[in-house]
Amino acid sequence: MSLKPKDTLTVCWEDGVVRMIDQRIIPDRFEVLTLRDYREVADGIRTMAVRGAPAIGVSAALGLALAARQALAGPGEAFWPALREAAQVLRGTRPTAVNLFWAIDRVMRVAEEHAPDPRAAADAVLAEALEMQEEDIRANRAMGAHGAALLPDEGRILTHCNTGSLAAVYYGTALGVIRAAHEAGKKLHVWVDETRPRLQGMKLTAWECRELGIPATIIADNMAASLMRKGRVDAAIVGADRIAANGDTANKIGTYGAAVLAKAHGIPFYVAAPLSTVDFAVEHGDLIPIEERSDDEMTHAGGVRLAPEGVPVYNPAFDVTPADYVTAIITERGVARPPFRESLERLRAGEGE
Amino acid sequence: MSLKPKDTLTVCWEDGVVRMIDQRIIPDRFEVLTLRDYREVADGIRTMAVRGAPAIGVSAALGLALAARQALAGPGEAFWPALREAAQVLRGTRPTAVNLFWAIDRVMRVAEEHAPDPRAAADAVLAEALEMQEEDIRANRAMGAHGAALLPDEGRILTHCNTGSLAAVYYGTALGVIRAAHEAGKKLHVWVDETRPRLQGMKLTAWECRELGIPATIIADNMAASLMRKGRVDAAIVGADRIAANGDTANKIGTYGAAVLAKAHGIPFYVAAPLSTVDFAVEHGDLIPIEERSDDEMTHAGGVRLAPEGVPVYNPAFDVTPADYVTAIITERGVARPPFRESLERLRAGEGE
Repeated sequence: MSLKPKDTLTVCWEDGVVRMIDQRIIPDRFEVLTLRDYREVADGIRTMAVRGAPAIGVSAALGLALAARQALAGPGEAFWPALREAAQVLRGTRPTAVNLFWAIDRVMRVAEEHAPDPRAAADAVLAEALEMQEEDIRANRAMGAHGAALLPDEGRILTHCNTGSLAAVYYGTALGVIRAAHEAGKKLHVWVDETRPRLQGMKLTAWECRELGIPATIIADNMAASLMRKGRVDAAIVGADRIAANGDTANKIGTYGAAVLAKAHGIPFYVAAPLSTVDFAVEHGDLIPIEERSDDEMTHAGGVRLAPEGVPVYNPAFDVTPADYVTAIITERGVARPPFRESLERLRAGEGE
Repeated sequence: MSLKPKDTLTVCWEDGVVRMIDQRIIPDRFEVLTLRDYREVADGIRTMAVRGAPAIGVSAALGLALAARQALAGPGEAFWPALREAAQVLRGTRPTAVNLFWAIDRVMRVAEEHAPDPRAAADAVLAEALEMQEEDIRANRAMGAHGAALLPDEGRILTHCNTGSLAAVYYGTALGVIRAAHEAGKKLHVWVDETRPRLQGMKLTAWECRELGIPATIIADNMAASLMRKGRVDAAIVGADRIAANGDTANKIGTYGAAVLAKAHGIPFYVAAPLSTVDFAVEHGDLIPIEERSDDEMTHAGGVRLAPEGVPVYNPAFDVTPADYVTAIITERGVARPPFRESLERLRAGEGE
């Protein structure tokens, strides 16, 4: 496979369509979907053709750009109801990653600034979505630069789920930090948690590390503790789907356990996420809605049923890591340290580190 | 499927052959293997047709009974070399569960008491193996009775891997304790860790719980932490593959992480194992050899490759939980409490709790 994630954007606009890497089939195959209807974008988000909070946000923005273009083809009075309907459909795809709602709100605000003119609104929606696509790349590069300084010059780094190029438009959040450190010459080895049930670590992160030439070893989620006890983990770094105002972090299921284990072993635990992932309207993590996904993700693998019939399954997609377990939050504007309520607020206000 | 694990012994002797449930295909199918050669028994242990420390021990003993019978068919002077060769082959199957070595040593000692007469030795080997088979069932029932008293009258119990009827000759160790509590009328709900990479929890424990009518829910290993934080786990109980003299416990990979998480959340963490699992010759857990198994267990599921090619995998089958994390060790002679060096020694000496 000659795929280079460093050369392909996870999601982008191209000649009036949305192009989206189909992450459901990696590492088996590499295909880029061509989406001509915003409902296909919504489907792609729901079924996790695209996933990762930043990538979901930009996908929704580009989906709205498609919806606006589709609505222009209809009668003028139908434009605004159609665009608002599209925003609703996109909002309904996944509940936890706040970037989805942030992106839709931002794009719809821009659209409404151009009301009532549909054509001007549609143009503005596309321009805003494209700006968000570019911003995401800049944010990830900035996070990489800020975060790389926190990682050791030589060491073993645990990560969970996928937070690489595929989780964003390009470059990635937590894996972007590892990549930046690697590119800066740090000698890192990545412990890739496989990340049950969907195995985004084993399938996506391991594959990205291979493509980027970053040394990596796949482990089952339940092996990290033993490696920590043996002194074989020097830092842990993960992404986020939503960070509450106090720093509590909702992220892929298993993150909380990894954070507790890191603390018990005196290992720094970093979160890397753009400020668009911080939901300042949510006071603490237990107020973040947690998506539960289908049993099939647990009971089947490769199309084959593994579990016995008739036994219930619990499949929350995320958990909440209280801020107490987070050493620092790496954002595009700098590194927030505890207490996070103040440090995140300062970064939002643009006061820097 | 009408299989009743309560009615079928995991491994037993029947008319001159060893009968062994093939655990590699559960819950898909239920089949009992008929083994006529001790090498087939060794293969069954190595490839995990049978697994679980107590079941491995008894399987090895029955394998020696087969070997003795096979050796009787040859010339008299070949009997002892053949029997010793069989002991060596069986010893080489798996390194961590001490019950394997304990069982082989015990049977070979009995055989040698009847040297040089091959027929008397073969009879004694079979009698000893059958005695061990019976002892195992009695030990599990006794563990169940001792351990059930430790579990709450009503509560949610986390367990890891499979420690049920399938992990022993019958009834089980940690799941035997849950079963005994359930049969005594306690209202328990079991959180079944799926137990990557081989999924013995999802495939075997969930299936046993269903057959026994014990309410259970399957979770990914990485979900237990979040349940603990929400107060939805009242106790955790696991088995053991080898317990050092100081109480350090080698058990299925993931046990250590679960133990650290239990302690961080103030949840009691119990180990249930027969005294044959305690290796009094090993001072502490870091001296216990830890088996590493094939990459395929991690990279494939249902015959389908899930991981990208070319990325290394780390697959230790066990980890070590230091005694500090263990609330109590439930044995057939009673419950050992810290300090375990003394309490386990007292149980060995037959002084009771």
